[in-house]
Amino acid sequence: METYEILTELLHNKKWKELKEILDEMNEQDIAELFMELEERDLTLVYRLLNKELAAEVFVNMEPEYQEQLIRAFSDTELREVLDELYVDDAVDLIEEMPATLVKRILKHTDPDTRKSINEILKYPEDSAGSIMTIEYVDLKRGMTVADAFTRIRRTGVDKETIYTCYVTDSKRKLKGYVTVKDLLLADENAEIREVMEDNVISVTTYEDKEVVADIFQKYDLVVLPVVDGENRLVGIITVDDAIDVLQEEITEDMELMAAITPTDKPYLKMGVFENFKKRIPWLMLLMVSATFTEKIITHFEGALTACVALTAFIPMLTGTCGNCGNQSSSTIIRGLSLGEIEFRDTLKVVFKEFLIALACGIALAVVNFAKLMIFDDSITWQMAMVISVTMICAVVFAKVVGSVLPVIAKKIGFDPAVMSSPFISTIVDAVTLLIYFAIASSVLNL
Amino acid sequence: METYEILTELLHNKKWKELKEILDEMNEQDIAELFMELEERDLTLVYRLLNKELAAEVFVNMEPEYQEQLIRAFSDTELREVLDELYVDDAVDLIEEMPATLVKRILKHTDPDTRKSINEILKYPEDSAGSIMTIEYVDLKRGMTVADAFTRIRRTGVDKETIYTCYVTDSKRKLKGYVTVKDLLLADENAEIREVMEDNVISVTTYEDKEVVADIFQKYDLVVLPVVDGENRLVGIITVDDAIDVLQEEITEDMELMAAITPTDKPYLKMGVFENFKKRIPWLMLLMVSATFTEKIITHFEGALTACVALTAFIPMLTGTCGNCGNQSSSTIIRGLSLGEIEFRDTLKVVFKEFLIALACGIALAVVNFAKLMIFDDSITWQMAMVISVTMICAVVFAKVVGSVLPVIAKKIGFDPAVMSSPFISTIVDAVTLLIYFAIASSVLNL
Repeated sequence: METYEILTELLHNKKWKELKEILDEMNEQDIAELFMELEERDLTLVYRLLNKELAAEVFVNMEPEYQEQLIRAFSDTELREVLDELYVDDAVDLIEEMPATLVKRILKHTDPDTRKSINEILKYPEDSAGSIMTIEYVDLKRGMTVADAFTRIRRTGVDKETIYTCYVTDSKRKLKGYVTVKDLLLADENAEIREVMEDNVISVTTYEDKEVVADIFQKYDLVVLPVVDGENRLVGIITVDDAIDVLQEEITEDMELMAAITPTDKPYLKMGVFENFKKRIPWLMLLMVSATFTEKIITHFEGALTACVALTAFIPMLTGTCGNCGNQSSSTIIRGLSLGEIEFRDTLKVVFKEFLIALACGIALAVVNFAKLMIFDDSITWQMAMVISVTMICAVVFAKVVGSVLPVIAKKIGFDPAVMSSPFISTIVDAVTLLIYFAIASSVLNL
Repeated sequence: METYEILTELLHNKKWKELKEILDEMNEQDIAELFMELEERDLTLVYRLLNKELAAEVFVNMEPEYQEQLIRAFSDTELREVLDELYVDDAVDLIEEMPATLVKRILKHTDPDTRKSINEILKYPEDSAGSIMTIEYVDLKRGMTVADAFTRIRRTGVDKETIYTCYVTDSKRKLKGYVTVKDLLLADENAEIREVMEDNVISVTTYEDKEVVADIFQKYDLVVLPVVDGENRLVGIITVDDAIDVLQEEITEDMELMAAITPTDKPYLKMGVFENFKKRIPWLMLLMVSATFTEKIITHFEGALTACVALTAFIPMLTGTCGNCGNQSSSTIIRGLSLGEIEFRDTLKVVFKEFLIALACGIALAVVNFAKLMIFDDSITWQMAMVISVTMICAVVFAKVVGSVLPVIAKKIGFDPAVMSSPFISTIVDAVTLLIYFAIASSVLNL
């Protein structure tokens, strides 16, 4: 990266002024990424060049390990300055990442009110709406005029995460509605908020699952969503950027489950070998042991195999192809379920459709395979080729039907459908494919 | 769904007034979903109960097939009313979905300016930023005062998709910067825009890939992003809700590729059996044919197998387990790449890490498998068990290394890493596992 060279250049020639000028023109996210490339000594050095506000923004955008480095290097005043600039939800994230000793120091230097709110938020369960909300919102009363509202926004807006949607609450802080700054700008100065506000407002409770929150954002194309407590009292708001992060976590989790990995929210490169091992081995073990069925099946048909060893040659091709078929179906259905495109009531429709698709695929594969064997494989009799092709059709149909129905059932009984994916499906499909294969073989070739 | 019963109830008793009252209180998205449950006749009936603005919002939120039903039922005046309320980007989406005959009629009833903009946007390639942008933004000049700005926003803001970020352009419409309504509210009435505006602004060109656009939204936590032409002239904006949709499409595409399915942006239930068949069969064929290697390998070692048929029993277990191992690695790396957590320069780090993880997994699996065979499988000699366990270790290491390195290479040479996933990997892994298995077997058991 070019800017990197320029900056280190300036840095090592101690050209602070030029350095500062460049940084002031840059985006906080870009600065953060740049800084994370620097050595610890340099990092604290250049960080101090940033003006207070920018400094905090850059700080928020850095990985925990670098934030830790900085905090250790901060004087108490510096620390307080950064903390004052942080939104409460960012402060919470920070505290969740830092070692206990630093947490003490951080809390010591946050002003009492913020500390109180931080502790409030820390109380909510990890996956709840409460844990990702921020408490910096603008609230208005129904009796205010539009002019009053603007005065309030001007006075308190500076350190609110968003001011464009203001929430209307009553004397008991109960959520009554919302009004956008757009509405306010287009309304008459003297109109009362109760006249301009929208009173049917979508909200979630603090204990709502954050994945549900993310889905609500998408369904209603929201930019911000209010969070209320059990008594419908407004306690915070969630902004779309946090919703997108939840969405991404959710998808990573699905993909990990679909690959038979126990999900974590830690990025791959940040995890040690042993951590990765622990995430992967349980499923591998489980699947390996369940593969015992395939052993038993084959041993049971050992007679047939001795009589016609050629049968063996096609086992991996058959199990592999059918595994792929099941995988196609399960992935399609799992994704459809998580996008809400497929509901439980669609089950029959889905299974029937997959049945037809499977039939089409099975026949196509069988025909091509038959032709291939007859043309290129003169050691194979046509009866033999027939056995393989018929097995193909039956096994493919089975694979696709199972692949489509298991995720739906999993969801219905409260599991994550993603568990019913490729690895799990193919373990079942392998066994059944072999059963079909040998059953047909021994009857047709009367072994 | 309860509301559904209530509404159909009112509908069939022709209680229009009550019906209208309920609908006016509901969210447009919910109304849309409710309406899509109705029969065609009822749909057009209740739709006419909605007030003009709500009607358009509901219309936008409906599936194309229902939009088509409505348009066919609309009088020219009704059609014009709806079209007047649509944002240009929604109008474009509509036109892209409707049959040619309706498109003619739609364009006939959109006012000339809008028609011009629609045609502009339709010119952009399907995956470009231009194709998902809207042209309804507020633009300001540097010479304006904050007061002027508010006047302009009040005058033109009504039908802009967002007013909260206003873009500052010069006389040649070149993008010079942006200013948020928050800045404006907190600034002095008489201050000039040039004083309050932020001049380093992130923008994309009309031809930028929309997936890149989505990534930019995430990286910088944006709510809106300006789109410029080759000469940096502002031509439109993209809002976060559209960016999220792109993100979801992108992920669905990855998941489809990872399941060896040719991606489309059509939802599963909307696709016919044959369409699905066409998306799935090419990959199945390719993979089936490549599985020919496994046949050849097994045929080549037929001698060994006749000498020791028991070997066959463990083929599916070995290929299956190793396939799962490869799948774990490839999925992890593919996701890491698409989240930008893993870069090409990390390749060596990744491969080495996967090697160690593989070693750990391989040994663990081998040990358990050996024990299992020795304890429960008295037909198996300890040499035999040894062969299987050693094969396990070697093949698992191979699977995980290949599974981690192929996606990175794919990305480097400009393919979608998702192609290098489970089905493709396991086809390779199957073959190599068999080679290792037979090689070790024939030497150890000297067959």
